[in-house]
Amino acid sequence: MSKEITSRSTDYSQWYNDLVIKGGLADYTDVRGCMVIKPYGFSLWENMRDALDKMFKDTGHVNAYFPLFVPKSLFEAEEKNAEGFAKECAVVTHYRLKADPSKKGALMVDPEAKLEEELVVRPTSEAIIWKTYKNWIQSYRDLPLLINQWANVVRWEMRTRLFLRTAEFLWQEGHTAHATAQEAVAEAVQMLNVYADFVENWMALPVIKGVKTENERFAGAVDTYCIEALMQDGKALQAGTSHFLGQNFAKAFDVKFSDKDNKLDYVWATSWGVSTRLIGALVMAHSDDDGLILPPKIAPHQVVIVPIYKGEEQKAKIDVKVLELVKQLKALGIRVKYDDNDNARPGWKFAEYELKGVPVRIALGLRDLENNTVELARRDTREKQSVSMDGLPERIVQLLADIQQAIYNKAQAYRDEHITTVNTWDEFVSTLNEKGGFISAFWDGTAETEDAIKEKTKATIRCIPLNNAQEEGVCVFSGKPAKQRVLFAQAY
Amino acid sequence: MSKEITSRSTDYSQWYNDLVIKGGLADYTDVRGCMVIKPYGFSLWENMRDALDKMFKDTGHVNAYFPLFVPKSLFEAEEKNAEGFAKECAVVTHYRLKADPSKKGALMVDPEAKLEEELVVRPTSEAIIWKTYKNWIQSYRDLPLLINQWANVVRWEMRTRLFLRTAEFLWQEGHTAHATAQEAVAEAVQMLNVYADFVENWMALPVIKGVKTENERFAGAVDTYCIEALMQDGKALQAGTSHFLGQNFAKAFDVKFSDKDNKLDYVWATSWGVSTRLIGALVMAHSDDDGLILPPKIAPHQVVIVPIYKGEEQKAKIDVKVLELVKQLKALGIRVKYDDNDNARPGWKFAEYELKGVPVRIALGLRDLENNTVELARRDTREKQSVSMDGLPERIVQLLADIQQAIYNKAQAYRDEHITTVNTWDEFVSTLNEKGGFISAFWDGTAETEDAIKEKTKATIRCIPLNNAQEEGVCVFSGKPAKQRVLFAQAY
Repeated sequence: MSKEITSRSTDYSQWYNDLVIKGGLADYTDVRGCMVIKPYGFSLWENMRDALDKMFKDTGHVNAYFPLFVPKSLFEAEEKNAEGFAKECAVVTHYRLKADPSKKGALMVDPEAKLEEELVVRPTSEAIIWKTYKNWIQSYRDLPLLINQWANVVRWEMRTRLFLRTAEFLWQEGHTAHATAQEAVAEAVQMLNVYADFVENWMALPVIKGVKTENERFAGAVDTYCIEALMQDGKALQAGTSHFLGQNFAKAFDVKFSDKDNKLDYVWATSWGVSTRLIGALVMAHSDDDGLILPPKIAPHQVVIVPIYKGEEQKAKIDVKVLELVKQLKALGIRVKYDDNDNARPGWKFAEYELKGVPVRIALGLRDLENNTVELARRDTREKQSVSMDGLPERIVQLLADIQQAIYNKAQAYRDEHITTVNTWDEFVSTLNEKGGFISAFWDGTAETEDAIKEKTKATIRCIPLNNAQEEGVCVFSGKPAKQRVLFAQAY
Repeated sequence: MSKEITSRSTDYSQWYNDLVIKGGLADYTDVRGCMVIKPYGFSLWENMRDALDKMFKDTGHVNAYFPLFVPKSLFEAEEKNAEGFAKECAVVTHYRLKADPSKKGALMVDPEAKLEEELVVRPTSEAIIWKTYKNWIQSYRDLPLLINQWANVVRWEMRTRLFLRTAEFLWQEGHTAHATAQEAVAEAVQMLNVYADFVENWMALPVIKGVKTENERFAGAVDTYCIEALMQDGKALQAGTSHFLGQNFAKAFDVKFSDKDNKLDYVWATSWGVSTRLIGALVMAHSDDDGLILPPKIAPHQVVIVPIYKGEEQKAKIDVKVLELVKQLKALGIRVKYDDNDNARPGWKFAEYELKGVPVRIALGLRDLENNTVELARRDTREKQSVSMDGLPERIVQLLADIQQAIYNKAQAYRDEHITTVNTWDEFVSTLNEKGGFISAFWDGTAETEDAIKEKTKATIRCIPLNNAQEEGVCVFSGKPAKQRVLFAQAY
């Protein structure tokens, strides 16, 4: 194989980086903490984005675009939000460079081009959007406002990892405005369900829906709903969040509406987002030591066809068959690539497409033509078989659906095996150390206990599951009375 | 009418702003020079983007995403490019805000969080992309590299106008790498043709293809190809540019490839882009004093249906018919909106959709139901007629095609009337003052003459048309020998 991949057991973290970089998803750049999303990775993101965008529109949302920059005075208006993001934000202070007299060809910041007010590169857009909503909302007739934007945001993270945590990342952020608290909560829950639907049914990744504790809540939110997924190293990953913002931003930006009785009240808000981080989750959840495993629904190429031949004459015969097959597959809406590049050998191509996680590979040579067969290989199970060309397109449609389901089932089985219910601190610690995954344990509801557990074990409360059973018990750490179990895990 | 629009004859500039803001395309924000693209405007942009994106992919390009920030040392590497953009760029100097001790709740830049190297917010991405390409290109087998990105960019313009000139704008930028100069020039010309195709056939706006003079060239380019369109006030607008960059960026970032004979050479480059500025062109070229006129192919709603009724019983009867019609239209791929909002009267809705430029309006009341008719109105000519419901969907398909063509024809007639060939300076000046538009005149080929004409008349050389006749003459300004005619105009 031309590109060596570190195995998971050798170095999980290096395995992940190898897949991302050698699989053609992304690469480091000369800009601290910023990555380049390479064409193959971006194609994956386009498929994810398009599916999500359709789900947003089907639930009544429209897209818009708000400014990249947030003037400092707006940024600081919602105090908790500002506090949460001020520590790691990129700040524009000048609007011009000029020739640096001390070094030929070099430039320097022009001190005369200092901005009167600094601009923060948006880490999230509540502030700029709610300042705008003030102009758009007067009456209940203007509500609800159901707007989403696809954008880049910047958070000056000190420790970055490709996709999982980068200074700049791409995301969508929905920002909605409502006349009542109930309606806003219903919206936040609806969008959590949209995210869960997407991650489970498109990314083939089972999630747990829950609500965050106060410690883990979005800065400025009243409640943060989340979906949590499990990676193959037993660590959790937050895959999407949906926030009920109460009237916090309406109050910060003085956004009121008159209701049907002409009474003025502050507007209720939600915001919700998922990001390119999801690609990191996808890689970590499904892939193996040979490379990526991509769910067919979002894979850039669902099928790759590799011809096996010697000389132009054989190639021409194979071409005839393959081009017909490609046409049939495309007519069924299948994303298919015919790789007849003669600079690379079939074996190299097989390894390359395994690395890139193409769900189905078809190979065919002259003997296949004679027998009216092809070799059909699936990436997830690595099964290979010789099958007839008759009915092949329909067979592939079914195979893609089977693979999508099989990838989900595998991830679900792993996840379900890694939810452990514990009742003592010893069990908690040994489960975390020996098995990882989610730990369901009673918690006394205090931030002190949460902090102490995090301090000792690096495990955080991932969420209070929405489907929690009604039961009471004793906190696994403090021994105090506890009203519910919560899910702990170490997390990305 | 609920929303007053300034007429073109009263104040062309205010007319434009009225259409953009009251038509729901965009709005000002609290961020200097930055606009918000409102949902209706963004939907228009999505249609434009999707059509262009398909054209790029059909010509073999793929999308990727590169960082927002360009470290100063990369920014300055290609000297002319740096010089061209340094005067108006946003510069990030710090990565943290902290509490301002002098004012409760306020934040200030944390002087301890100063970046070692300043980051320029990308005004264009050649520098960051070619620094990346250096890692991706070793051999002729890696070429051509045909990559596009959809992104936001920032240019600190001092005088801004919604869509036409904003500090932040959305665009796409293609960046390709080639083994030979010929191939790169062919790519630049191909993409110019793609732009012309899009602007003419989707935006219904005729363009002139040409090449820029050295004065007007993109900073860092060897040649800048452009398409130029004409607005209703007789001013030109550059609608898209495609640059042959030679080996300038390959040399600045040391990007070499080995050819088939193992000889090393610098890579040849192109870049090309269109932006949300095109929306400004669209508004200015087609609209009238009642509002926007949008070409059906990119209009967010192609058809709007307004019911006319009194009471729920009549409404219910109309609903049955309309919902059936909506279904039929959607099946034909038509973007249709049924506006049965009972908070607004039909007259208000008629004005609103005229303002918003919806190409076709259908109105129907109880008498129409009885007669099996609807009132069909087209926005561009304001013609109205009563037509049968039988065969209505097919009729509308044809009508939309007719409107698309009619809008183009009107713009073309206006444009063709406003290309004036002149041979003397007096003619030049009087044409510019009395008629505007493009002026075809001999030019001696010197930057001095170009500058002098600009100084005296504000007219610039828009382009040297690609289809220029082979003729020689005398420069309209200097009287010196001239090798060709060029197109002058005042421009946005």
